[in-house]
Amino acid sequence: MSVGIVETQSVTFDTDLRLESGRILGPITIAYETYGNLNRDRSNAVLITHAWTGSAHVAGRHGEDDQKVGWWDAIVGPGRLLDTDRYFVICSNIIGSCYGSTGPTSINPKTGKRYNLSFPVITVRDMVRAQVLLLDHLGIDRLLTVLGGSMGGMQALEWATCFPERIASAVVLATSGKPSPMAIAMNAVARWAIFNDPTWKKGEYRKNPKDGLALARGIGHITFLSDESMWGKFGRRFSARDGLFDFFGRFEVERYLSYNGYNFVDRFDANSFLYLAKALDLYDVTWGCESLHEALAPVSAPIQFYAFTSDWLYPPYQTEELVNALKDLEKPVEYHLIESSYGHDAFLLEHEAFAPLVKDFLDRVSTGR
Amino acid sequence: MSVGIVETQSVTFDTDLRLESGRILGPITIAYETYGNLNRDRSNAVLITHAWTGSAHVAGRHGEDDQKVGWWDAIVGPGRLLDTDRYFVICSNIIGSCYGSTGPTSINPKTGKRYNLSFPVITVRDMVRAQVLLLDHLGIDRLLTVLGGSMGGMQALEWATCFPERIASAVVLATSGKPSPMAIAMNAVARWAIFNDPTWKKGEYRKNPKDGLALARGIGHITFLSDESMWGKFGRRFSARDGLFDFFGRFEVERYLSYNGYNFVDRFDANSFLYLAKALDLYDVTWGCESLHEALAPVSAPIQFYAFTSDWLYPPYQTEELVNALKDLEKPVEYHLIESSYGHDAFLLEHEAFAPLVKDFLDRVSTGR
Repeated sequence: MSVGIVETQSVTFDTDLRLESGRILGPITIAYETYGNLNRDRSNAVLITHAWTGSAHVAGRHGEDDQKVGWWDAIVGPGRLLDTDRYFVICSNIIGSCYGSTGPTSINPKTGKRYNLSFPVITVRDMVRAQVLLLDHLGIDRLLTVLGGSMGGMQALEWATCFPERIASAVVLATSGKPSPMAIAMNAVARWAIFNDPTWKKGEYRKNPKDGLALARGIGHITFLSDESMWGKFGRRFSARDGLFDFFGRFEVERYLSYNGYNFVDRFDANSFLYLAKALDLYDVTWGCESLHEALAPVSAPIQFYAFTSDWLYPPYQTEELVNALKDLEKPVEYHLIESSYGHDAFLLEHEAFAPLVKDFLDRVSTGR
Repeated sequence: MSVGIVETQSVTFDTDLRLESGRILGPITIAYETYGNLNRDRSNAVLITHAWTGSAHVAGRHGEDDQKVGWWDAIVGPGRLLDTDRYFVICSNIIGSCYGSTGPTSINPKTGKRYNLSFPVITVRDMVRAQVLLLDHLGIDRLLTVLGGSMGGMQALEWATCFPERIASAVVLATSGKPSPMAIAMNAVARWAIFNDPTWKKGEYRKNPKDGLALARGIGHITFLSDESMWGKFGRRFSARDGLFDFFGRFEVERYLSYNGYNFVDRFDANSFLYLAKALDLYDVTWGCESLHEALAPVSAPIQFYAFTSDWLYPPYQTEELVNALKDLEKPVEYHLIESSYGHDAFLLEHEAFAPLVKDFLDRVSTGR
């Protein structure tokens, strides 16, 4: 069942956050949504951590007329994987984003103007520190689990390594402990597309730099799909509207990238896109440590990992590096490689494959078995 | 040994070429180079077909002070794979390019101005038809072999299927009988980068659209490398000149793409890039046929195919489709899958792996064994 009509809430912390870069960010506003009820002993809280361009709006609708449900509605609601009759589910918008939490589109209280590029470079660890503020505010000492895919998985890893006492478990999907140079390269050309757009104006635009941002998102979509899923979805079909020998004639895959790219311009800020792309590329679970083993040593909660065979953005071998290091350290770890042609997108599309496994894992965690 | 100092020659044909699109192109100029001597019975001619941004200048230097040898110098010269003491080696610039053969930068005799976007969309088959004009001009009825990688491999395939009586063999490296939607998608975003550049002016620029073309080429470079080669070449190293938390700070892989992208602007025309990208995407060996088997039925010459394990632009399975269909048809075909981490670039870098195999193949072809 759906969680029904929901509302995004917001809280502002007057504290300053000391970022990994050494810069100070404050005040910090966090937009969040919650579903279900916190139980008496505050032991049923689940944090969903979202990916690059996600938001706090995981499930339900924002009004009767809202045509679209939240981005991971399929797994949150009464009777669903994250059963809201049982769990208190929270999702907060990451800092740096543009969906209500402090980011480059926010007003810098010191200048009264939008931060734009005066916003500090942030890391995934900074995002998690901001989430800690929220949990303190909600009076939750310990999460039953933190669950996320892609950049959401990176956040879950940071919870497990930096705040091990505050989670009872973690579920990490389609992620990387350190994005590959291939993943960085794809983000690099996406950034470049925005930098090339004269309407971007070094971040001082009034209107989103349309063509550059659309192209950047188009490049992103390539990384979310796979060779196999593209054959299935588009093959070599040419747009029925275009002539094969028209200079501007397009293949279906080309139309798809363009369509989704331009749609994105209406919903996401270019500077936020750039800051979050940077956070992705900079992400390294060993940040501040000498080795992967040192970085993972503090982990105490059991972690369940998922990788997807056709994910070429964060390929399975990257998850396996983490799993093997945790096994070396004799940490409680579980790994599932899911056969899927959907590429990186699989973590959003293959919930039927992983939901029973996650459910079983959470049952075990809840009952302490 | 090197072939030494060489010169690009040029010939103009006053004939019109009827293109696959139905449009007429003429006159046609072909720039070409030759190395070695044609033997008395004209049976030792080898045609090298070049890739996307290649030129007729395969081997040697253009002058004493020329710092750079031709693009495939390693395999052409006395004692080299294509031994110029033995073979008469030819390479011609493809039509649509900007290195001397007729392309969008050429003057349209009907208007006295550069073609730019009034240039017709061309196909790989059209390129090969223009090469046929050159061979007729050189008095060569039959090539001992036609050898090429990437788009050069597509040309070799067209020779084998459309002009089977004019080749005694073919060597096809790192190619595809029909680029995948993934390959098309990467070209699509490269095209988009140029279209987005306001200095491109729908092709009517005076100066190459620098930022758009550099980005397009940067995207291309991603497809030439592989996940593995990028780990080896760059890893996650950050530019020593940049701060990790500088908004514009760059990873080494990012600098590489940018450096090579901007270098490209000085040597290649944006419109040519676009026309040839389109020819790549449109390429389908089954063009005009009902099936792959029908398309390959005319093949009579033995073909040696090479694919490279880490090539994700034209992955081995695409070569294997061609090889298997030729085997079904009981055509003389040979296939070598070369283990390499270099990605698509492997066809230029792994010549030590394939040269002995090609040499043996050509020996067999020459002696009729």
